[in-house]
Amino acid sequence: MNRRQFNLGLFGTSAALGIRGYSFANQPRLHVNGARLNEHLKALSEFGKNPQGGVSRVAYSEADRQGREYVLSLMRAAKLDVSVDAAGNLIGRRAAANNDDRLLPILLGSHIDSVPEGGNYDGDVGSLGAIEVAQTLAENNVMLRHPIEVIIFQNEEGGLIGSEAVIGALTERELDLVNKSGKTVREGIKFIGGDVSKLAIVKRDKGSIAAYLELHIEQGGTLEAEKIDIGVVEGIVGINWWDVTIEGFANHAGTTAMNNRQDALLAAAKFIEAVNRVATSVPGRQVGTVGRIQALPGAPNVIPGKVVCSLELRDLDAAKIQMLYQKIRSEADQIAKASRVTFDFKELNANIPAPTDPRIRSIIDNSAKELGLSTKLMPSGAGHDAQDMARIGPVGMIFIPSIGGISHSPKEFSRAKDIENGANVLLRAVMKVDGSSV
Amino acid sequence: MNRRQFNLGLFGTSAALGIRGYSFANQPRLHVNGARLNEHLKALSEFGKNPQGGVSRVAYSEADRQGREYVLSLMRAAKLDVSVDAAGNLIGRRAAANNDDRLLPILLGSHIDSVPEGGNYDGDVGSLGAIEVAQTLAENNVMLRHPIEVIIFQNEEGGLIGSEAVIGALTERELDLVNKSGKTVREGIKFIGGDVSKLAIVKRDKGSIAAYLELHIEQGGTLEAEKIDIGVVEGIVGINWWDVTIEGFANHAGTTAMNNRQDALLAAAKFIEAVNRVATSVPGRQVGTVGRIQALPGAPNVIPGKVVCSLELRDLDAAKIQMLYQKIRSEADQIAKASRVTFDFKELNANIPAPTDPRIRSIIDNSAKELGLSTKLMPSGAGHDAQDMARIGPVGMIFIPSIGGISHSPKEFSRAKDIENGANVLLRAVMKVDGSSV
Repeated sequence: MNRRQFNLGLFGTSAALGIRGYSFANQPRLHVNGARLNEHLKALSEFGKNPQGGVSRVAYSEADRQGREYVLSLMRAAKLDVSVDAAGNLIGRRAAANNDDRLLPILLGSHIDSVPEGGNYDGDVGSLGAIEVAQTLAENNVMLRHPIEVIIFQNEEGGLIGSEAVIGALTERELDLVNKSGKTVREGIKFIGGDVSKLAIVKRDKGSIAAYLELHIEQGGTLEAEKIDIGVVEGIVGINWWDVTIEGFANHAGTTAMNNRQDALLAAAKFIEAVNRVATSVPGRQVGTVGRIQALPGAPNVIPGKVVCSLELRDLDAAKIQMLYQKIRSEADQIAKASRVTFDFKELNANIPAPTDPRIRSIIDNSAKELGLSTKLMPSGAGHDAQDMARIGPVGMIFIPSIGGISHSPKEFSRAKDIENGANVLLRAVMKVDGSSV
Repeated sequence: MNRRQFNLGLFGTSAALGIRGYSFANQPRLHVNGARLNEHLKALSEFGKNPQGGVSRVAYSEADRQGREYVLSLMRAAKLDVSVDAAGNLIGRRAAANNDDRLLPILLGSHIDSVPEGGNYDGDVGSLGAIEVAQTLAENNVMLRHPIEVIIFQNEEGGLIGSEAVIGALTERELDLVNKSGKTVREGIKFIGGDVSKLAIVKRDKGSIAAYLELHIEQGGTLEAEKIDIGVVEGIVGINWWDVTIEGFANHAGTTAMNNRQDALLAAAKFIEAVNRVATSVPGRQVGTVGRIQALPGAPNVIPGKVVCSLELRDLDAAKIQMLYQKIRSEADQIAKASRVTFDFKELNANIPAPTDPRIRSIIDNSAKELGLSTKLMPSGAGHDAQDMARIGPVGMIFIPSIGGISHSPKEFSRAKDIENGANVLLRAVMKVDGSSV
């Protein structure tokens, strides 16, 4: 770290304000306790642990409930005032200096629920990282100008349910969704101590938070491959889903000559290649995926008459997604003609891109650099609670490397040092946001 | 028909033998009753009739049992001595002239079981056509030199079960197979009046039949497209099946850049295209099909890490199947390298090609031409009981056009006139085989 550079940082301004907050220029440099944070992660990994590694800590499962109890105990140890909101989100509040409530709260957090057979880093790093930041502030008796709220959103993996509730976007349809716990969201909220009838009081209005900051693993392999310490997230990509139905004509695979076929699976194969070709035809980080496919009737000796597959496109730029989609449609039209099949595209729910706040992006970038860490501006290809929070206030996300780019897998791994780095960047960014949001 | 040509036919020789059989040269020309045959087909279509057309007369179902009763009544009306063998095949025997049993029986038949949601022609045409031939002989008091056996094989669609029993190839594994009736073959045989404990007596030895003749719909679209009346089957193709497993690496579809993927479904798409390319790369009637596919984990937002699909190759020439397979393997090797995935091929049961008897082929061709019908030598792309019977004696198959080449479907259709033509060719061929097999 370059000390001189540091003193010139945004954060220096808070000292000049003369309030009874933490003034970086006059204090020894704060650091999280990396060893403790990694110990906490290890302890959390026991809840829902799988024999083959990783965890299945699906929201509303017994493992989830127990993991949440553990997290509440860490929050209490970090001197946070804990509560469970009506949506079942865990909240740990640290009051502002002098209990001054005039400034809006700075929120930081993530989630601890996992996908079935998931890993120990997705969500956990940001959740326990946020608590570690709070504990560091507490044990150093640092009072910030803004109240701090550590928020552990419930059921992120099942559709950002906890943050949907916080922004007032949770629908009846979502409340009826059943996840791998076997419970509906409605039943799950009750199970984890929430109260569906009181969801209205959970809702936060636009402009009611100073910022939301989330530390997370990258889940991709870019940071590791490029040997970068910290990813500064420029936004959470938009995600568009379609169901694609290809209709040909099912017929006997033995008696139907090759030139007489209307093979829906052969057309689907050409389509899958086209999606890949289009998604890689322009520069950028956009991705296109066919992840699900069903061929009917699905027998080795019958030419498939119908195929249903998924199409997913992601990018930070909604217009680019539309441009790629139109190119794919055009390729599908050509395949349809050549293969004597029809294509039908049914648009499913789409998440619009959620850019992060430019000021917070810059704070994160500066914070990392002041700590001597290298940074890269990058999109988040995955969805996060931050994309919901972006609808009510400025958000920022900090990425750390995922080894091998593996996520949603027992093989998911991030190095202890990277986790510590991420939490230190989070700590510094929170303090800068606190100091600069005058 | 050219009368002169006809008198010079093979059949004329039986008159010269001076036996009390039918002597074509001295008799008015025999014809089946096409209207009656088509009426019988219509009546049979009531058993297992589906509201949307066609039938579901799956072997061992109640509809199958009732359809078999109806067929037995037709056999009796055709003056056949009926029996149900221990395997559950229906047999209608017509004695030889003078009850002379020294000559081997000529068998003719097919099956009346259907696939689920099948049509009214696959199997039915050959079954009722064979009975119509017997009835024509009976009402014209024509005694042949050989005994005639009309045989309606049970459960053709479930793996040629009835004919497997007749050639002594039915295995314990097959007896345990469960079909859409919900019954095992073992239970089904009991249900239709057979006796599994006595299967040994059903077995016929090699050389114990004079011939087996089967009339059948083409199930492909070649005859209709080329406006040919009768297909002379040169053989039943060999069928080789493989399970193909493609392993890549499952990963997050949002966070894994396009160039970092090991997408098993994208590799499978290239493979499906390669199978089509190889199967159409050489002249001939060979076919290659991928009919079944499963991508795992199978979510729109996860890059498939594993794909399992089927590969089927069919041709009359086993060596050609192997050549095509090696080409496909070589293409798969290249895809594996380029896509960083692995391919594994697991060979499943293979049916070897079953050529028809050249002499019978020629008899069928001549019979059709004598009736003024156009013919085409062609393979049977579908499996038939005739392929089993080919292991114990000379076989021949007669195809009639399938409109639109559609089979195993309620839309399966053959014209009444073509059905009548087919039965007339069968009648004439049976008589020629009888006359020539001195």
